[in-house]
Amino acid sequence: MRKLRYGMVGGGPGAFIGGVHRKAIALEETAQLTAGCFSSREEKNRECGEFYGISADRIYDDYKAMAAGEKDREDKIDFVSIVTPNSTHYEISKAFLQAGIHVMCEKPLCFTTEQAEELCAIASEKKLLFGVMYTYSGYPMVKLAKKLIEEGEIGEIVNVNAEYLQDWLIDEIGGGDQSTTKLSVWRTDPAKSGISNCVGDIGTHIENTVAYMTGLHPRRVCAALDNYGMDLDLNANILVEYENGVHGIYSSSQVCAGHLNGLVVRIFGSNGAIEWVQENPNYLKVVKKGQPDQIYHRGTGYITGSAAELNHIPSGHPEGLVFAVANHYHGFMEAVCRMLEGNPEAAAQADYPKVEEGAEGVKFVHAAVKSSDYDSIWVDIK
Amino acid sequence: MRKLRYGMVGGGPGAFIGGVHRKAIALEETAQLTAGCFSSREEKNRECGEFYGISADRIYDDYKAMAAGEKDREDKIDFVSIVTPNSTHYEISKAFLQAGIHVMCEKPLCFTTEQAEELCAIASEKKLLFGVMYTYSGYPMVKLAKKLIEEGEIGEIVNVNAEYLQDWLIDEIGGGDQSTTKLSVWRTDPAKSGISNCVGDIGTHIENTVAYMTGLHPRRVCAALDNYGMDLDLNANILVEYENGVHGIYSSSQVCAGHLNGLVVRIFGSNGAIEWVQENPNYLKVVKKGQPDQIYHRGTGYITGSAAELNHIPSGHPEGLVFAVANHYHGFMEAVCRMLEGNPEAAAQADYPKVEEGAEGVKFVHAAVKSSDYDSIWVDIK
Amino acid sequence: MRKLRYGMVGGGPGAFIGGVHRKAIALEETAQLTAGCFSSREEKNRECGEFYGISADRIYDDYKAMAAGEKDREDKIDFVSIVTPNSTHYEISKAFLQAGIHVMCEKPLCFTTEQAEELCAIASEKKLLFGVMYTYSGYPMVKLAKKLIEEGEIGEIVNVNAEYLQDWLIDEIGGGDQSTTKLSVWRTDPAKSGISNCVGDIGTHIENTVAYMTGLHPRRVCAALDNYGMDLDLNANILVEYENGVHGIYSSSQVCAGHLNGLVVRIFGSNGAIEWVQENPNYLKVVKKGQPDQIYHRGTGYITGSAAELNHIPSGHPEGLVFAVANHYHGFMEAVCRMLEGNPEAAAQADYPKVEEGAEGVKFVHAAVKSSDYDSIWVDIK
Amino acid sequence: MRKLRYGMVGGGPGAFIGGVHRKAIALEETAQLTAGCFSSREEKNRECGEFYGISADRIYDDYKAMAAGEKDREDKIDFVSIVTPNSTHYEISKAFLQAGIHVMCEKPLCFTTEQAEELCAIASEKKLLFGVMYTYSGYPMVKLAKKLIEEGEIGEIVNVNAEYLQDWLIDEIGGGDQSTTKLSVWRTDPAKSGISNCVGDIGTHIENTVAYMTGLHPRRVCAALDNYGMDLDLNANILVEYENGVHGIYSSSQVCAGHLNGLVVRIFGSNGAIEWVQENPNYLKVVKKGQPDQIYHRGTGYITGSAAELNHIPSGHPEGLVFAVANHYHGFMEAVCRMLEGNPEAAAQADYPKVEEGAEGVKFVHAAVKSSDYDSIWVDIK
Repeated sequence: MRKLRYGMVGGGPGAFIGGVHRKAIALEETAQLTAGCFSSREEKNRECGEFYGISADRIYDDYKAMAAGEKDREDKIDFVSIVTPNSTHYEISKAFLQAGIHVMCEKPLCFTTEQAEELCAIASEKKLLFGVMYTYSGYPMVKLAKKLIEEGEIGEIVNVNAEYLQDWLIDEIGGGDQSTTKLSVWRTDPAKSGISNCVGDIGTHIENTVAYMTGLHPRRVCAALDNYGMDLDLNANILVEYENGVHGIYSSSQVCAGHLNGLVVRIFGSNGAIEWVQENPNYLKVVKKGQPDQIYHRGTGYITGSAAELNHIPSGHPEGLVFAVANHYHGFMEAVCRMLEGNPEAAAQADYPKVEEGAEGVKFVHAAVKSSDYDSIWVDIK
Repeated sequence: MRKLRYGMVGGGPGAFIGGVHRKAIALEETAQLTAGCFSSREEKNRECGEFYGISADRIYDDYKAMAAGEKDREDKIDFVSIVTPNSTHYEISKAFLQAGIHVMCEKPLCFTTEQAEELCAIASEKKLLFGVMYTYSGYPMVKLAKKLIEEGEIGEIVNVNAEYLQDWLIDEIGGGDQSTTKLSVWRTDPAKSGISNCVGDIGTHIENTVAYMTGLHPRRVCAALDNYGMDLDLNANILVEYENGVHGIYSSSQVCAGHLNGLVVRIFGSNGAIEWVQENPNYLKVVKKGQPDQIYHRGTGYITGSAAELNHIPSGHPEGLVFAVANHYHGFMEAVCRMLEGNPEAAAQADYPKVEEGAEGVKFVHAAVKSSDYDSIWVDIK
Repeated sequence: MRKLRYGMVGGGPGAFIGGVHRKAIALEETAQLTAGCFSSREEKNRECGEFYGISADRIYDDYKAMAAGEKDREDKIDFVSIVTPNSTHYEISKAFLQAGIHVMCEKPLCFTTEQAEELCAIASEKKLLFGVMYTYSGYPMVKLAKKLIEEGEIGEIVNVNAEYLQDWLIDEIGGGDQSTTKLSVWRTDPAKSGISNCVGDIGTHIENTVAYMTGLHPRRVCAALDNYGMDLDLNANILVEYENGVHGIYSSSQVCAGHLNGLVVRIFGSNGAIEWVQENPNYLKVVKKGQPDQIYHRGTGYITGSAAELNHIPSGHPEGLVFAVANHYHGFMEAVCRMLEGNPEAAAQADYPKVEEGAEGVKFVHAAVKSSDYDSIWVDIK
Repeated sequence: MRKLRYGMVGGGPGAFIGGVHRKAIALEETAQLTAGCFSSREEKNRECGEFYGISADRIYDDYKAMAAGEKDREDKIDFVSIVTPNSTHYEISKAFLQAGIHVMCEKPLCFTTEQAEELCAIASEKKLLFGVMYTYSGYPMVKLAKKLIEEGEIGEIVNVNAEYLQDWLIDEIGGGDQSTTKLSVWRTDPAKSGISNCVGDIGTHIENTVAYMTGLHPRRVCAALDNYGMDLDLNANILVEYENGVHGIYSSSQVCAGHLNGLVVRIFGSNGAIEWVQENPNYLKVVKKGQPDQIYHRGTGYITGSAAELNHIPSGHPEGLVFAVANHYHGFMEAVCRMLEGNPEAAAQADYPKVEEGAEGVKFVHAAVKSSDYDSIWVDIK
């Protein structure tokens, strides 16, 4: 088994998402953190790099120095994980691509459709892998859902009902008490979050997870977003029409009391239905028309395909979010290995969320905001 | 305790909804079935009346004869229950109103907004009680939800997410196998169901239950209905805007596998949220911002108001649909008693679904269908 | 369809269990309340009888007068429902049997095994029907469980885990505040409840429901009962050994906070398992070895047998306790009809809880109390 | 932040529990794998050590060489993780203690009470830390339960109902098909599992988790174990009496179809109750007498104490088993740091499962087996 070298941009002490990426890679045990730029504060950055055992010459002051420094080393990093604030994803990703380094970037990919298309183009031209961390398709039971749907278990899809409800910005309603919600302030600041807060942060996860499970991509959306007095949206109810004319509904919110991270996806077909609930991710509800409901449990003998292969611990012992991220890194790092072996065809088969999905997400957000701005007319995604 | 006399139109052997009404009244033990017209087939009608112990002269051949026959009797029925096919509700209700008899009619009230307004006007002019059986507001935990919301427990409402999903018409998709779905054929026949099947049959229950709980009435709707090759809709996703500008989403469907009678109402406020699930109606989930979820159980000491008064059996022993209907009859029959005592003011205070709610339901259905016909534009409800 | 005449002893205004029996019979619509003795207070008794439309000569002052008065009438009652306090069940049942009248008695049958055997003997000798209202086997999903187990769906039974937890006597711990628990005081008074409170009131329901589902009868029990300073038990944990050597555990309690009427039965077999939860009685969980869990819903097309025949309302609309009691009356009244037609063999096939089950319950309670008194030795049930 | 050095015995490629320990330590990011003996097969051992980046001289052929080799190094390992087969725990733990090295051992501690007491004595005498990996008390919501109970939230404990049900040995019933259950064969072999399979493997987790939450230790047990034709038990129902006279029931099984890793703990007090379900470990149900049920969610603002401090990821994103193990290592490694700083008093305050708990577990298993062997008499734990 090959052990890869990787670098990280962002993810200093106390950073949530950086820690998730780093721990996820550690769960895989097949890559070593070898270079990094963890913080813009020099001392903190240095301490952090030393704590992770990185040699002094590979603890970089900024991402540009890091891209330049790694670019031509013989033992350069095999890929970089980008876990910085959202507004910086575009430029940092671009820098590493231009340095010829494979990229795994936290979502969102970027803020504008032009940036998204540019990044897709560079990666394609340079034949580099570019992953975007849409976490939820990493869960084994989401992979099982995809497999069952592909195999025709629920027939032709006729309706989709998906939601992602949270409540952590409920105090922003009516303007919020800025002093008590420090953590969240940047979320509703257009400079830091782009044109959308709620749809951009979590609505896009609905879109990605449904697309992964079903292969269905929205053709157009009809949206009602609610700002409740803030600059950006905190709540969104979106009618969706897929390329095949089927309809669905995506509801996302950060003001729904009692919902912490309530991503729920329900796919309805002519012959059955599938339901997955992120907060209890080790189960999948599958109903065949005219039969009792079935509850599948992760890790059992009746599960096959990648949902079975990606088990880390036995059934009945819950896995959680970090394993889902680890599964994405599993696919991504497998692809990196295939590239190192000179086998891009095999690399292309690997299962992890790719830059094109990131671009689709950006377009979805823009269409939803535009629809809502025009009093909920249908807006095409393109 | 006064014992009322009531008559029934419809509800012969094997009729589901007629049986529900009759059994609900029996659970109350305060009214006696005294007159009826149960079937258009004479012998069946006769046998049915005799089985219920009705004297021969009050078993009527048709509703016109019944309205005429009861109108001038000294011991005439105190009210009539109308449980006939939907397309006949308008004319039969009108006949009994014109005979001066209080009416409880199964929903829908009628098919057109003109009919709805006419029935409202007659009832009002003649000072007659007119109930429309929107079942679900009869459940004690729905009444508790209404009370908690009125008392400000969840603050100002900011979002509504409600659905009513069933799967019993899934075989109609693509035209259905008419031979195997005899029961359902009339549902998708405009002559028998009016302009809408799914929204008219169950979407309207969402509208009524939310309005009962919250006092919020849709100002306009933006709808996508799906017919899947049939004459009428089998699926509907509807954006709703209330009079105060707040948005919500109502999803109703008869093709969602695994959902039998899945009415779920979630009301989100600035200070908390409430969730009620019809299939497990003895619970109410109440979340206050920043606190653990709370699950209220019907029949416990911490419940007050009409939710407590309408308990039939102790907590932990489930009540179900027929008790909800009984609760509506409880309110309606109390109003009838108050009218018999010459106290219309007291009668007006009684808690049961009234003809105006039936009229609102008809308007909601028409607006939803029109919106969908015009590619999901917003359509006002008026 | 024949309409029966029945009488009731007990069940005056405000009486919970009497109302349940009367309403359950009303749901069946096939019997008419014709005679009764509802209260020991003469005026209340009279008023009650009149309210139910009973002719004055059949409103009796006491049960002896009623048994005597009905005994020789040509139009005598076809059966009597006994819904009086527990300590009177024995004598009243005996009186009606001796008057040649079929009996349905609320549980418990009586307080001593001698009484139980005497009642069995009289009913048998006089060829009279004698039902004892063990409510829970009346639920359709319990009947489905029985059918699936009989058909071998879960293989040979290897373990049983059943519980019936309530919390309504929690304030009795340490002696209770007698003033605040008026309702419950009689429960812990040996004169009114016999030798056991908790096992006698609810533990016996576990025994009966498991025996109905599985056909397994305890051969011996090993029990630890807890009185917490009261005269009778409030909590019981009981090891059970069935006739075939298999073990199980029955836990019953009235001091388990948060449990209102928590009867839960889990049967484990060599090839699968079945779980039923009384508070959500319209579902049955069935797991076959090595397969996903299955959730059966009452009223669906995939359910067959008496669980299907006894549906009152469509799937997804919850039925509850009173329908379970109605189902028992359905079986019992069918048996009464067969007896009236002179067909005791057919009557014997009817499905309702019989006096022998009541006798087994009494013996179970006695064995559990004895085991606990002797520091949890095994005590045979005989 | 100090970075520790640790060694591992066992845990080669494909070993489940070794991987869990190693990944748990990686999630903490504060210790480096520095020495090891992973497999008895030399080449596999070597490869494994190299993969983890261990220098050649610290990849040992057997545990004796490792204890000897590390004992006197200046840069010796700070602690060892023992993740070998159960029958070897005693001797390996003893060897490292005698080499003066702190130990974290997978459970069970050992097979006999004499061994258990010997290990306790050595650790105590040598002032070494000795952890035993009882996983489940590592979950934040178990820690919250302990805190709430200590604070008197549910009053005095009056009853305990706990179970740990699995189904993975169901094919062993009646002797099993040895060919198809290779993985499990050692479980029912006394040479490899000691005197008990089911109670020793999982029943002991019930005992430990309840003791952690409540502080209640069983004084005596009354048990019925079922072997179903195998040499060791596959199922156990155990009455428990605590030191204060309160009773409880512990059910453990490996033949209950549909249960994968079903540890459920319910603690009932005079003022409320607490319920925790391992398969959905991020929730805690807390009921106060006379109030609605409360569901606490891990990671929310209303949670305090170590349950809050040990959060790894935000609320609503599920954590799972490996984080629970990480939490134990967090406490254990904190204690190791305190010892390195020469502060054994502070080390003693750390929260992780200690050798005395391992010893209590061994005694519990022996008492349960003896009780069952003597037809379920009460057997004292001592």
